Amino acid sequence: MQIQLAENYGFCFGVKRAIKIAEDNKNSSTYGPLIHNSKEIARLEDDFQVGLTDSHKVFKAGDKAIVRTHGIQKQELEELKNNNVNVVDATCPYVTKPQEIAQNMSEAGYSVVIFGDEAHPEIKGVKSYATNGALVVTSSKELQDIKLKEKIALIAQTTRKVEDYMEVANYLIPRYKEVRVFNTICNATFENQEAVLNLSKKADVMLVIGGKNSSNTKQLFSISKDNCADSYHIEDEKDLDFSWFKNKKLCGISAGASTPDWIIQNVIDTIESKID
Amino acid sequence: MQIQLAENYGFCFGVKRAIKIAEDNKNSSTYGPLIHNSKEIARLEDDFQVGLTDSHKVFKAGDKAIVRTHGIQKQELEELKNNNVNVVDATCPYVTKPQEIAQNMSEAGYSVVIFGDEAHPEIKGVKSYATNGALVVTSSKELQDIKLKEKIALIAQTTRKVEDYMEVANYLIPRYKEVRVFNTICNATFENQEAVLNLSKKADVMLVIGGKNSSNTKQLFSISKDNCADSYHIEDEKDLDFSWFKNKKLCGISAGASTPDWIIQNVIDTIESKID
Repeated sequence: MQIQLAENYGFCFGVKRAIKIAEDNKNSSTYGPLIHNSKEIARLEDDFQVGLTDSHKVFKAGDKAIVRTHGIQKQELEELKNNNVNVVDATCPYVTKPQEIAQNMSEAGYSVVIFGDEAHPEIKGVKSYATNGALVVTSSKELQDIKLKEKIALIAQTTRKVEDYMEVANYLIPRYKEVRVFNTICNATFENQEAVLNLSKKADVMLVIGGKNSSNTKQLFSISKDNCADSYHIEDEKDLDFSWFKNKKLCGISAGASTPDWIIQNVIDTIESKID
Repeated sequence: MQIQLAENYGFCFGVKRAIKIAEDNKNSSTYGPLIHNSKEIARLEDDFQVGLTDSHKVFKAGDKAIVRTHGIQKQELEELKNNNVNVVDATCPYVTKPQEIAQNMSEAGYSVVIFGDEAHPEIKGVKSYATNGALVVTSSKELQDIKLKEKIALIAQTTRKVEDYMEVANYLIPRYKEVRVFNTICNATFENQEAVLNLSKKADVMLVIGGKNSSNTKQLFSISKDNCADSYHIEDEKDLDFSWFKNKKLCGISAGASTPDWIIQNVIDTIESKID
């Protein structure tokens, strides 16, 4: 069986940048997981003493708090700064952008609609910047009984599929006077999605490697599954089931933006050691 | 054969308003046809001495110039005012709006894209307000080799089909950072289009009455033709061919926004006098 990596996969600019920031800030803590990959976070703890806390309230004046790639809520950031915590911002610049848009559009009197997962930290953060509130939806169905202002600003979670985003845009545009559509889906997401699409069309088994709670990995897996029925979302080599590869010719591999190369390499090495 | 009028058809708010303005301003002239219906224009000339000129240069100081419903170019309007011509503005307010948007967006640094017919007076007018220029297209194909700014303002001719407008929006949104979509298709257009859609689905012959150069009539005809193969675009009763009605049960009728009721009534009377 041949193994082929997607043309684009894995670590994006924002994740690489955040890991560099963490490595440069030994003996600190992140508020929430820096990236959605528990194994990489364990490595940062072991090798760089970068801890993890699940509340911003534990930081005291003088503590160093690293803000995760997905960003945090506006009020929490303000609280940290007011408490003289030493804030090191590892928010991905592609997430800072929709935060700014949410704030500007909300202040300019637009109804802010965010296409994304309400429970995801990135979206909790972006929403908090819409000072007059925002509506978070995952499809146009959730907009059907809602009356918005005649001017709407539409923002997407950075890791969403563009086709799904367009579904929401297509619902809103004919119904309102102005719909200001911000294309906030990041380029790495686009490129990884396009590459997994191409590869999953020709592979007869596909592995998508990434954290189970990683939004962008889930999107990659969804695209893969649409084109290759034998697609599997795994976190690392321990999730492999070698029966998947029986009578297969081409195993395609993609990985989410928070998946480090060393995990991908472990998966490849493990398959190669067991399968011809 | 039964004859049924569409639930919404004919004169829109802007046309009614313009005719009222013309009737209230006897012994004046319009620059270009006030509305796209030559017979109504002849009536205004006969009954109200409202003439028609094809150049704004003929107006002299003190002359009364009526601006047509479709609007005129910014520079021409300024020239008329500078020459102390008494300008009576019958531009439809739904056309004034896209003119303002074109100017504001152009001045705010957006690439202005207008979805419409470059040769139509409304679009010539709207385009003239985009002080830094605008691109006029009728489909996304015309955008394929063009690099625009990252911020785009998209404006539609008031009388276009919303599905065709969405085709252009769907091309632009994934390719640029911000696409500000202004829904400038007017409600009367929406309502007349929806009504002709419903009627043409059940009628076995359809008549769409309106000027041959009327954009909105052409759109109504296109929708009708998609649903009822025996659809005919006529200007008045003289265009009727009675063979169309042979063995037909339901004749649906719609009319463009510039078609006066008296023309529609003439068509109905003529059919009823000849057909059972």
